Amino acid sequence: MKLEELQKSDLMEKKKSWEAQYNNFKAQGLKLNMARGKPSPAQLDLSMDMLNVITSASDLYSEDGNDCRNYGVLEGITEARELFSKMIGVGADEIIICGNSSLSIMHNAVSNAVTHGIGGCTPWGKLDKVKFLCPVPGYDRHFAICEYFGIEMINIPTGPEGPDMDMIEKLVSEDESIKGIWCVPQYSNPTGIVYSDETVKRFAALKPAAKDFRIFWDNAYCVHHLTDNPKSLLNILDECKKAGTEDMVYIFGSTSKITFSGSGVAMIGSSKNNINEFKSSLAIKTIGYDKINQLRHVRYFKDINGLKEHMKKHQAMLVPKFRMVLDTLEREIAPLGIAQWSKPDGGYFISLDSLPGCASRIVQLCKEGGVTLTGAGATYPYGKDPEDKNIRIAPTYPSVEELEKAMELFCICIKLASAEKLLG
Amino acid sequence: MKLEELQKSDLMEKKKSWEAQYNNFKAQGLKLNMARGKPSPAQLDLSMDMLNVITSASDLYSEDGNDCRNYGVLEGITEARELFSKMIGVGADEIIICGNSSLSIMHNAVSNAVTHGIGGCTPWGKLDKVKFLCPVPGYDRHFAICEYFGIEMINIPTGPEGPDMDMIEKLVSEDESIKGIWCVPQYSNPTGIVYSDETVKRFAALKPAAKDFRIFWDNAYCVHHLTDNPKSLLNILDECKKAGTEDMVYIFGSTSKITFSGSGVAMIGSSKNNINEFKSSLAIKTIGYDKINQLRHVRYFKDINGLKEHMKKHQAMLVPKFRMVLDTLEREIAPLGIAQWSKPDGGYFISLDSLPGCASRIVQLCKEGGVTLTGAGATYPYGKDPEDKNIRIAPTYPSVEELEKAMELFCICIKLASAEKLLG
Repeated sequence: MKLEELQKSDLMEKKKSWEAQYNNFKAQGLKLNMARGKPSPAQLDLSMDMLNVITSASDLYSEDGNDCRNYGVLEGITEARELFSKMIGVGADEIIICGNSSLSIMHNAVSNAVTHGIGGCTPWGKLDKVKFLCPVPGYDRHFAICEYFGIEMINIPTGPEGPDMDMIEKLVSEDESIKGIWCVPQYSNPTGIVYSDETVKRFAALKPAAKDFRIFWDNAYCVHHLTDNPKSLLNILDECKKAGTEDMVYIFGSTSKITFSGSGVAMIGSSKNNINEFKSSLAIKTIGYDKINQLRHVRYFKDINGLKEHMKKHQAMLVPKFRMVLDTLEREIAPLGIAQWSKPDGGYFISLDSLPGCASRIVQLCKEGGVTLTGAGATYPYGKDPEDKNIRIAPTYPSVEELEKAMELFCICIKLASAEKLLG
Repeated sequence: MKLEELQKSDLMEKKKSWEAQYNNFKAQGLKLNMARGKPSPAQLDLSMDMLNVITSASDLYSEDGNDCRNYGVLEGITEARELFSKMIGVGADEIIICGNSSLSIMHNAVSNAVTHGIGGCTPWGKLDKVKFLCPVPGYDRHFAICEYFGIEMINIPTGPEGPDMDMIEKLVSEDESIKGIWCVPQYSNPTGIVYSDETVKRFAALKPAAKDFRIFWDNAYCVHHLTDNPKSLLNILDECKKAGTEDMVYIFGSTSKITFSGSGVAMIGSSKNNINEFKSSLAIKTIGYDKINQLRHVRYFKDINGLKEHMKKHQAMLVPKFRMVLDTLEREIAPLGIAQWSKPDGGYFISLDSLPGCASRIVQLCKEGGVTLTGAGATYPYGKDPEDKNIRIAPTYPSVEELEKAMELFCICIKLASAEKLLG
């Protein structure tokens, strides 16, 4: 029976029993951190052999004869550009392989625009106002970059096909101060949606008022499937080329959730114009990224199929965890009608919408009960969820057993906070 | 006999014979690149075992229990902070261990100041004029950062004790737009000098008009000795603490010329205030640097003594190369009185001053003869050597045999260009 249909007295009784369950839980002294989308140690174990593929000096020369131990090769070694261009859907001459952090590359891209401008346009730092569109709920670290640079963020609602394209088309065509949009097009963080072909085409066909408008296409989960027959994402750079807008998109990717989160390689793909522009500013920052690590990745995976095979092992580890979360929510919460959640086919998160006004309370209760979730509001710009209802669940790090405990607590907290809310 | 004391006819005859030698050389089709200070493959071989110190997952936990494969630990793992704080002379809580490039850290430091300001001061990007002092000759990549951000550079002459402190004291105390100075205090690039104790003390005692004035202390060669009893450099952070100016200095270091130039670790050391400020902006850019590589370094060296022992192997490889250069110059050029050069006790370079107006010509002749040197002028801001006389010799990369050939050519080019000059 739906919670809101209960008599007040019945609801109070329920609440009392949930409080008792909650207090029991608290007494267990659980201590679990589910705040971030981190791979589990077992997932990291999958790539251990990558650390041993290079053993002698003769292994350390790239295809075109560069000693990977030494300085240089700013754009990354040829074989890494070939491999990862296939992963993010660009040409091998449309990519730069960087260090371990795609976030750093995104930051660089924004920072370059702030201090030097894009394609000869006025540096954003010299403008009175710069705005970014932010499909919500979204990724807090994207929003933090905007906040850091004083870029105003505008929330864009997201549906099952992607962000609201009507709204985006209208806004970017009317407002020259809108310079960018953050997108996680495949297995979106946190909603798990995959942008539809129509959405991708409409992105490629945007006619922004600002010449230096850029789509920040963070394809962090492009090979991170949870099903055997994944929905495919239309190639944005191809679509942009057809529409004559190939300079409008920056594509980002990394192996942070493929090999090692702290020791992967990250990359930016884009039109040749953009890659050249990015490279010229990069030349001021560094002599080159860690080529030994690039080589390790290539030698380990051999080719894109090797990488895809590797991702199946991740899938096998993650599916039971996602299933545990979804089954528990289905059993404990669905009948009460107090929350809705995503059922993603890939990525790292499940997005849950509680009753309005309950998310902060649920997260607080969980924390006091021993499970740290992503902060409520984190999925919105400025940390402000206007309805205080979205919670990001990150099921990847804990073991299935830990997750079972955590979900048990989480469901009690949802029930308790909802009852509190309904009882006013 | 000094070249300038020769009769014109004698000089013309000499020139003719040098031209013949030069043309002979050209015919050999030599192809050598000595443009940058790169370690030789043999030097890189010294650290090969570092790639194999980590073999199993259980090796991958840092002292304080962090899984180095996963996200996080923005400031670097504890044991790396301990090891490298001893290398650059700061406390283990006064350092951040970063990625493979100290240049990137310096760029970050300047970039942060440009967009956000230092310690609450106006961001440099909002000021009409920002200036940096540049001891010359110096490092072109430092100058490139300034040029990129539109920071005006002022040349400061360098003597055997360091840069001209009278000039520096006067300028920084009078001009609030002077926000920084680039220093390579030990085995300076390219002069090889070590700043005297007096110079370091005067740096620490600076009273700049600008509150956000910073000394960029690039201690890139702090353990890169070429003698067994190296001159020691006074600890700048200690001196600053005594003078109450510990927020005035950023210290940079890296293992680029200790382990692998492309796959080392780099670091910034400073006061706790500065480290906290730097860390808070870093948190926007990245979740953390490559901790596996940090761990590799620590496991390989074990402690600072291990690192110092390792540097003796580099020394043994580099000493014959520096000797080859110096001996050849002494034999071929000294008697003619047409150049002066440094005799460094460490670092990566020999700095040569030709007759005024000859450096570009010498570099050009060398290039056409098959040896690429660092471009003339590169050691000065804006690539402009006011007297066109300084040439940076980078003897580390070629083998001794190659170096012998290269030096032979180089000396012919010095002679030829000098004769051309003297003959008008």
